[in-house]
Amino acid sequence: MLPEAVLLQAQQEMLDWQGTGMSVMELGHRGEAFQRVAAETESDLRDILAVPAHYKLLFLAGGASTQFAMVPLNLLANNSAADYIDTGIWSKKAIGEARRYGDVNIASQRVTRDGWAAIPPQAEWSLNPKAAYVHYTANETIEGIAFPYIPTTGDVPLVVDMTSSILSAPLDVSRFGIIYAGAQKNLGQAGITLVIVREDLIRDPLPFTPTLFSYKVEAENHSFYNTPPTYAWYMMGLVAKWVKREGGLAEFAKRTQRKSTKLYSYIDSNADFYRNTVHPTYRSCINIPFNLVNEALTETFLIEAAAAGLTNLKGHKLAGGIRASMYNAMPEAGVDALVTFMQAFALKYG
Amino acid sequence: MLPEAVLLQAQQEMLDWQGTGMSVMELGHRGEAFQRVAAETESDLRDILAVPAHYKLLFLAGGASTQFAMVPLNLLANNSAADYIDTGIWSKKAIGEARRYGDVNIASQRVTRDGWAAIPPQAEWSLNPKAAYVHYTANETIEGIAFPYIPTTGDVPLVVDMTSSILSAPLDVSRFGIIYAGAQKNLGQAGITLVIVREDLIRDPLPFTPTLFSYKVEAENHSFYNTPPTYAWYMMGLVAKWVKREGGLAEFAKRTQRKSTKLYSYIDSNADFYRNTVHPTYRSCINIPFNLVNEALTETFLIEAAAAGLTNLKGHKLAGGIRASMYNAMPEAGVDALVTFMQAFALKYG
Repeated sequence: MLPEAVLLQAQQEMLDWQGTGMSVMELGHRGEAFQRVAAETESDLRDILAVPAHYKLLFLAGGASTQFAMVPLNLLANNSAADYIDTGIWSKKAIGEARRYGDVNIASQRVTRDGWAAIPPQAEWSLNPKAAYVHYTANETIEGIAFPYIPTTGDVPLVVDMTSSILSAPLDVSRFGIIYAGAQKNLGQAGITLVIVREDLIRDPLPFTPTLFSYKVEAENHSFYNTPPTYAWYMMGLVAKWVKREGGLAEFAKRTQRKSTKLYSYIDSNADFYRNTVHPTYRSCINIPFNLVNEALTETFLIEAAAAGLTNLKGHKLAGGIRASMYNAMPEAGVDALVTFMQAFALKYG
Repeated sequence: MLPEAVLLQAQQEMLDWQGTGMSVMELGHRGEAFQRVAAETESDLRDILAVPAHYKLLFLAGGASTQFAMVPLNLLANNSAADYIDTGIWSKKAIGEARRYGDVNIASQRVTRDGWAAIPPQAEWSLNPKAAYVHYTANETIEGIAFPYIPTTGDVPLVVDMTSSILSAPLDVSRFGIIYAGAQKNLGQAGITLVIVREDLIRDPLPFTPTLFSYKVEAENHSFYNTPPTYAWYMMGLVAKWVKREGGLAEFAKRTQRKSTKLYSYIDSNADFYRNTVHPTYRSCINIPFNLVNEALTETFLIEAAAAGLTNLKGHKLAGGIRASMYNAMPEAGVDALVTFMQAFALKYG
């Protein structure tokens, strides 16, 4: 989902970007015009996220799955040990790719305790103090489980996949070695990934790394080693300006909190009909999966919801059930409409 | 450059694709709506390019530079010998990346004969009959040099970078093992690459290949192993439909021929003022670089051309001089305007 204001601006500028008579799609990436798009996007994102000066921003083709390979390829050249926290499907994908390049230790894993899905507290993790890095997934979109804190890993660099949660709340970038986020959730359109990398982690990668997969090459070339996804970069810039106009990350944290609280409160107070099984401490405020206690009603729920204009509620194929997402572009009225529908549905079938 | 009709359609559909009430950027890539976009794009491209059934079409994130790595990573697993033809800057980039993964033999190289840049005839090449493949660049955008024929390589698969020439003329796909083309020239916007690969070449890649760089993984997943660059894919689809509407590749071959002949004829008949040094047999009909005989006038030429509305004429930084490009979206009137300007400029300064 994208903010309407952003789509309207993209629409208006489609054939003529700022009086150039050209679409952003037609701007040469090395030309003065696109350089401005690129530089403004970076400076707006640095501003919003309060990125310290010793971090580089990279704008790379592809999605987060590309980073599943780039992280180990770039960080395991001198030390092949990596710690991963396994909290769900996305963690597992990152782990699968990392195992191809190094010795992966699963330092902790999602558990079910007293019927609740949870992330074990850090005291229970088996971190390797000599690991090249610790990787975790801030928010698991499919299971609806998220970290309510930033892990503490001492001198071991912390790497995080923030594809689904970036720009949803203020962030202390200085706690991380690398933050990466595919753009298609809160940063614009699919096909580009933002990577925020601490300068001391930019080193020679494993020798067989494709040139374009080297953070060093990309950083030295300001993400212009080859033609970058220019239009997706531009869209990210429009989104960044929209986030600023709307009040920045503190404002989006409030909105996300309000939206998710509304839905969780309703679900929890109607536990005979709807159920979310993630422990409240570890619940995602971005992706809220839930089930109908009478699972036979799921299909009916989805059909009637769609008829009421509520689409994209089907749970991931690996999880089933229902899932509502609270990305920045989703207005509060959308949650209100969903809760209203859920009330009527429970009344009708309860 | 993109066709105005394509940009207008993208503009019109920006907030509502075919009555869905959603932008293509917002469509889930696994949903029925985007699946239709993807399938139609593929079927239109198969139609236009007359792609035989035993070839797969892949729609991959990134540009042609990604293929500089993917080709050797995927084709050198069982045979590390590859032949490359070096005709210019783009060939050299492909060669540089391939050397990291195999034994590259430069089977032939651009030459200067009697003052003309030329590609040696195939009889002079030193092809290795046991090579895993032969790679060449159909059109060198910077030097303006192109193959007027498809090389014959017997049983050795032929791999071609067609980024700048795809869709500019009918193509006998069956002569190739792999054809790849970054989209930003004749296929839409930067950030996606079309790869046409003969099925028997889809095999296990070198063991350290990133999962997303495996043709096999991408083919098995219909380019949906992870979220693809959906909007760039959609734009490629709009371009494909436009090419069909305009009359297909035979029509674009005629237009390209007419446009380039006009400019070359004018340059050649004013050799005391303008000069192109590529042998006529090997001249690109897509990118036409030329110099002013009095090179001191180059800057003035570019400034006065821009003032007359003729932009993007600066030669690549590695070549200098002037360069005019004849991509499909460039109307014939653009060449007429350029030639008219060149006549006036020669009169003024000649």
